[in-house]
Amino acid sequence: MPRYRLLVEYDGRPYHGFQAQGALPSVQASIERAVKAFCGQALRLQAAGRTDTGVHASGQVVHVDLEKEWRPDVVRDALNAHLVPEPIAILSAQVAPEGWHARFSATERRYLYRILNRRSPPALDQGRVWHVKKPLDAAAMHAAAQALVGHHDFTTFRDLQCQAKSPMKTLDLAAVRREGDEVLLEFASRSFLHRQVRSMTGTLAEVGVGRWTAEDLKTALEARDRRACGPVAPAEGLYLMGVGYGD
Amino acid sequence: MPRYRLLVEYDGRPYHGFQAQGALPSVQASIERAVKAFCGQALRLQAAGRTDTGVHASGQVVHVDLEKEWRPDVVRDALNAHLVPEPIAILSAQVAPEGWHARFSATERRYLYRILNRRSPPALDQGRVWHVKKPLDAAAMHAAAQALVGHHDFTTFRDLQCQAKSPMKTLDLAAVRREGDEVLLEFASRSFLHRQVRSMTGTLAEVGVGRWTAEDLKTALEARDRRACGPVAPAEGLYLMGVGYGD
Repeated sequence: MPRYRLLVEYDGRPYHGFQAQGALPSVQASIERAVKAFCGQALRLQAAGRTDTGVHASGQVVHVDLEKEWRPDVVRDALNAHLVPEPIAILSAQVAPEGWHARFSATERRYLYRILNRRSPPALDQGRVWHVKKPLDAAAMHAAAQALVGHHDFTTFRDLQCQAKSPMKTLDLAAVRREGDEVLLEFASRSFLHRQVRSMTGTLAEVGVGRWTAEDLKTALEARDRRACGPVAPAEGLYLMGVGYGD
Repeated sequence: MPRYRLLVEYDGRPYHGFQAQGALPSVQASIERAVKAFCGQALRLQAAGRTDTGVHASGQVVHVDLEKEWRPDVVRDALNAHLVPEPIAILSAQVAPEGWHARFSATERRYLYRILNRRSPPALDQGRVWHVKKPLDAAAMHAAAQALVGHHDFTTFRDLQCQAKSPMKTLDLAAVRREGDEVLLEFASRSFLHRQVRSMTGTLAEVGVGRWTAEDLKTALEARDRRACGPVAPAEGLYLMGVGYGD
């Protein structure tokens, strides 16, 4: 039973998140339906990241175990054909090595958060960026963000519903830069707690507008208390950019 | 009666083009409705470019003559508030100098055409790029496009419905480059014929896939015959990027 590794791009707007939940529209249910239409097989796929409602992906990774061996490009093209007109695209398909697992073999998740930082609302990027009107100091956000890098108890930046056993995580990258009207935040870690990226981003935006200092952010992290977190940034600016497997 | 110059961004998907046409949704009708809601005035605005159904803009310029004098930032913010939730944003507003006209004072229009050139369909950019599966040679397209630059009879690249008096236009820029999976075409001219950018783009794509040579493109231009044009590229990849006023 060959296992196929699929690289997936999607617009999160029409979905109640990645994960299938009963009759609610989800990215997972749409891909599983496409697999069924392609080869008749009813399966559960496995994914590297369970993105929330409205969160996008340009590099989600999933796997499917197919009963029959197909050429990978046939799998990619057939699934794309069955996904029309949904905003989900299989960018590539390849046969996975023995024992490889989309979720458990992943060694890094990378997220991008896009803030549109201008007075006027987004028109071309409605639903794809967080609109912040007040000018953000991206350099100050970047400097403050460095306190988050490393091995920490991220309880402050963890949703109360988070089901991870431990709040300890190692953040490998937190980088903030301005590109024109956008402030872009990049984060990389082996894995993230529930809403960790949005919690860190919303809090960093408080630094960006000058309401918090870098020291306030550090104190909030050290409080290990959800109540110390700043506002949580909305889903619409968040993108799962890629998943690393040490390959 | 002060004249306000507005810089406008919009997603062309929900609209039957820029121009108001009876009860059909249009960008113009939406902005005029926002003006009415803001200050009670029923007016006709003037625009630099009349974009077609599905064509986007990041830098359309329009003007409105308001009976009362308002602070420009009040005009911008009020119109944006009344445009919610439409994908139209007023990026800036300023008082125009005496005699200035959004359409007649324009000395340059700039357009961008985005082609997504990969096997898989767009997910994040559905309706915002033209999807071309076959690999495009952007350098060959750029080289061929240089034959279009200059003062020519563009009858070949002009829609049969075009109402311009003359097919003579001066193309100041035609540049094609690759950025990752995208092939980007930029064009600049004082003014364009109806569907000229999409006609040139579709024909250049024929060069990109190797069906046409640069010489074929030159011959098509010189034919001054609409039947010599290649396929017309779809609206969804086209953006009015900016309008120049020699200022």
